[in-house]
Amino acid sequence: MSNGDIFVGEVIGTAILILFGAGVCAAVTLRHSKARASGWIVIAFGWGFGVLAGAYTAAPLSGGQLNPAVTIGIAVDTGEWGKVWVYLLGQIVGAMLGAVLAYLVYLAQFQANVRTEGTTDGTADEPVPTLGVFSTVPEIRNPVANLVTEIIATVALVLPVLAFGLTQGLGESGTTVLIVSLLVVGIGLSLGGPTGYAINPARDLGPRIVHTFLPLPHKGGSDWGYAWIPVVGPLIGGALAGLVYNAAF
Amino acid sequence: MSNGDIFVGEVIGTAILILFGAGVCAAVTLRHSKARASGWIVIAFGWGFGVLAGAYTAAPLSGGQLNPAVTIGIAVDTGEWGKVWVYLLGQIVGAMLGAVLAYLVYLAQFQANVRTEGTTDGTADEPVPTLGVFSTVPEIRNPVANLVTEIIATVALVLPVLAFGLTQGLGESGTTVLIVSLLVVGIGLSLGGPTGYAINPARDLGPRIVHTFLPLPHKGGSDWGYAWIPVVGPLIGGALAGLVYNAAF
Amino acid sequence: MSNGDIFVGEVIGTAILILFGAGVCAAVTLRHSKARASGWIVIAFGWGFGVLAGAYTAAPLSGGQLNPAVTIGIAVDTGEWGKVWVYLLGQIVGAMLGAVLAYLVYLAQFQANVRTEGTTDGTADEPVPTLGVFSTVPEIRNPVANLVTEIIATVALVLPVLAFGLTQGLGESGTTVLIVSLLVVGIGLSLGGPTGYAINPARDLGPRIVHTFLPLPHKGGSDWGYAWIPVVGPLIGGALAGLVYNAAF
Amino acid sequence: MSNGDIFVGEVIGTAILILFGAGVCAAVTLRHSKARASGWIVIAFGWGFGVLAGAYTAAPLSGGQLNPAVTIGIAVDTGEWGKVWVYLLGQIVGAMLGAVLAYLVYLAQFQANVRTEGTTDGTADEPVPTLGVFSTVPEIRNPVANLVTEIIATVALVLPVLAFGLTQGLGESGTTVLIVSLLVVGIGLSLGGPTGYAINPARDLGPRIVHTFLPLPHKGGSDWGYAWIPVVGPLIGGALAGLVYNAAF
Repeated sequence: MSNGDIFVGEVIGTAILILFGAGVCAAVTLRHSKARASGWIVIAFGWGFGVLAGAYTAAPLSGGQLNPAVTIGIAVDTGEWGKVWVYLLGQIVGAMLGAVLAYLVYLAQFQANVRTEGTTDGTADEPVPTLGVFSTVPEIRNPVANLVTEIIATVALVLPVLAFGLTQGLGESGTTVLIVSLLVVGIGLSLGGPTGYAINPARDLGPRIVHTFLPLPHKGGSDWGYAWIPVVGPLIGGALAGLVYNAAF
Repeated sequence: MSNGDIFVGEVIGTAILILFGAGVCAAVTLRHSKARASGWIVIAFGWGFGVLAGAYTAAPLSGGQLNPAVTIGIAVDTGEWGKVWVYLLGQIVGAMLGAVLAYLVYLAQFQANVRTEGTTDGTADEPVPTLGVFSTVPEIRNPVANLVTEIIATVALVLPVLAFGLTQGLGESGTTVLIVSLLVVGIGLSLGGPTGYAINPARDLGPRIVHTFLPLPHKGGSDWGYAWIPVVGPLIGGALAGLVYNAAF
Repeated sequence: MSNGDIFVGEVIGTAILILFGAGVCAAVTLRHSKARASGWIVIAFGWGFGVLAGAYTAAPLSGGQLNPAVTIGIAVDTGEWGKVWVYLLGQIVGAMLGAVLAYLVYLAQFQANVRTEGTTDGTADEPVPTLGVFSTVPEIRNPVANLVTEIIATVALVLPVLAFGLTQGLGESGTTVLIVSLLVVGIGLSLGGPTGYAINPARDLGPRIVHTFLPLPHKGGSDWGYAWIPVVGPLIGGALAGLVYNAAF
Repeated sequence: MSNGDIFVGEVIGTAILILFGAGVCAAVTLRHSKARASGWIVIAFGWGFGVLAGAYTAAPLSGGQLNPAVTIGIAVDTGEWGKVWVYLLGQIVGAMLGAVLAYLVYLAQFQANVRTEGTTDGTADEPVPTLGVFSTVPEIRNPVANLVTEIIATVALVLPVLAFGLTQGLGESGTTVLIVSLLVVGIGLSLGGPTGYAINPARDLGPRIVHTFLPLPHKGGSDWGYAWIPVVGPLIGGALAGLVYNAAF
């Protein structure tokens, strides 16, 4: 695969992933959305099927990694680092593009996210915090615990992804990406409770950059003090998965 | 494929799609339905598995496109426009047929959708608006924003559908339609919040025509002022996806 | 396939189907169940994955039809009626066996289904009606509308099932039953609202017979006045699907 | 497969299974989790996709049985008992490892599980019981009924798993584990209501041992009086499934 194909593939694929992922967070949290308050099952399947959409689309061009933690895990396992920078660059650009697209899809909802005085029940509605649409926010702020959560959850993503390549018939039948997307649904359901499961540095960093610059009403802060955890944690997790895979398989 | 096979395939397949799609909207919104108020996850999976049912059924006859936006996207990509009119005709006829079938399935529920004076809690129940069973209704009425939402959501459908044809093994293993149907579930979960995701001109226009003529009690208006958006938006999105696909892949 | 294999396969497969299906109805409706009130999405996926479990298990012995409407639809299409009686016999025996197994799984819940005087909130709990665990109960009792609902929903099952046999690659890849099970999930989500989607005469009749004889406390009536609709409707729907399939494909 | 590969595969695979399974129980029940109170559908899919993640990962090393009931069922069917002890040892060690990993993912949530005096609504929150994150707890304590539930639910797992090996095309297409994971989702939805569906002795015993020794605040008892049921029931069920399979297929 040429560097150009890899870059284009990762940009398109990651943009689709984040369009779906940020989209489902907007769908569930913003007012005036038909999916408002529809629950964690919607969040988890929305992100998982974002992987399905993005990775199948990117597959013919770049293989559809869409995640620096996966790229690092593969590099640690294979020892081939030459094209890693192309993947990472495409992933971060794609994640930013996807966040802008999700913003455009929910444009009217973001514009309507203002404090409404004198609502029907006599109280004033607070604006919904918007950062959660773009990036992860931990439920309990505890750097060590949050980092451990992201590391383990990323190992639970990358180790199976590496092992799937060995499973007989999976690649040939074209269902590998389907399996990975359901794996991501599972990680969301099971391991997303504490930190919102970044498990992908580009997924968190790209949209956070976009959030910083977008002119959203009542958007609140972009919480850069937390931003290193969903970058460092998944990178450690991806490398760790590569090492475990190399040792055990 | 003969014109006759294409027409019959698209009629049957689109009718099944709309039977499931309008059906799940009826299931979740109408009174005296066992699925009443069962949430957005039910809506999204109901539509997605409607694609699964309709497209697998139509596949041997017409390939199962079931959506003018998909047909336009393929035509823009391949440059073959000769049979497009047969697909579109079948799709719109099928969508109308499907809407009538969904109406028949929920006949008793539609007939019971009358204002009930003196309910148990002392208030009178309003009739449920029926248009939402048939066609899309935006949460915030904003033509530019609604159009942008439909365009992006349709690109997110048609670009992956075009790319799936290139993904190794997907077509041969017979799982392409399954993947597309889960993609449609994902679009619903993630991008359906603002407008209810038409992403298919036939899906919206056919049932809206049927709604205009059906003798439903308390049916309310058919909102023809909005009807151009879920037609024009998806057509632009489908063409755009064809152009992007041609350029990038 | 020998008559013996067909009979055993259909008994085991239909028993598993009804174990899962009656089981999920018990899970959602009975008190002291961890899944109580978990909603329509649980019902629909529970029944669908019951098809998956039962049909994959029965497949090597009988092909896994598990439903007289499917058997009739195939016979109308192929004109081969010689072994129909073996299938039907196995299906009805299996459905009765499955209902007994579901009863045993929820034995403690059924025994605890008694009126509880003096509950914590000062009101007495009514016993939960038990028939809905075993057989379908319409939301609005209207024989014509209920019959139409069951006919259309059964066509929406059997016509795709017949067409799947033609879809390239589906059978060879071993995913046919998976697709059918997701189709059944979709029928539940979309078309189950009015009558609870029998779409299978054995599924309704077998458990109703068992309900009539089981010594359940506070079980209420078995509603034999309605019992003909979920038998006749699906049989008409299955035959109709066979005719449409023969004409269109 | 060497004993070493089997052991390592079962440890890794069962650890992933329990990480997802205990994880989703923590996600739904603990305070300060984004998935709190998200319902039974989340529990069932979380466990099912834990099977998907663990079994696909373990498949190249050990085949990915991850469950003593499955191992016993295969041994009863094939008569080969020589490596059973390696599988069981790996499964119990893996289950303990997985429980520790799930504890680490939800570390901050477990630490925050203390009685909070003077909450905003004037009442004090009770600590959430923690055993349910690790092991199964019956809704109604009735040894005979609980045992029957676990036996039948385990037969409903192991009999289909054995039969899948005979289903044409399933193994070759690499989708067997996907089918089994959806089967486990179905068992959870349909048969999990009374006892929380152990259906796997290692799944219950390993985490219970870990729960006994972990220094959790307000953890409550480990309920060893019940512990034999989710061990003995699934073992009987697995053996029974092996016998039925041998007789019928």
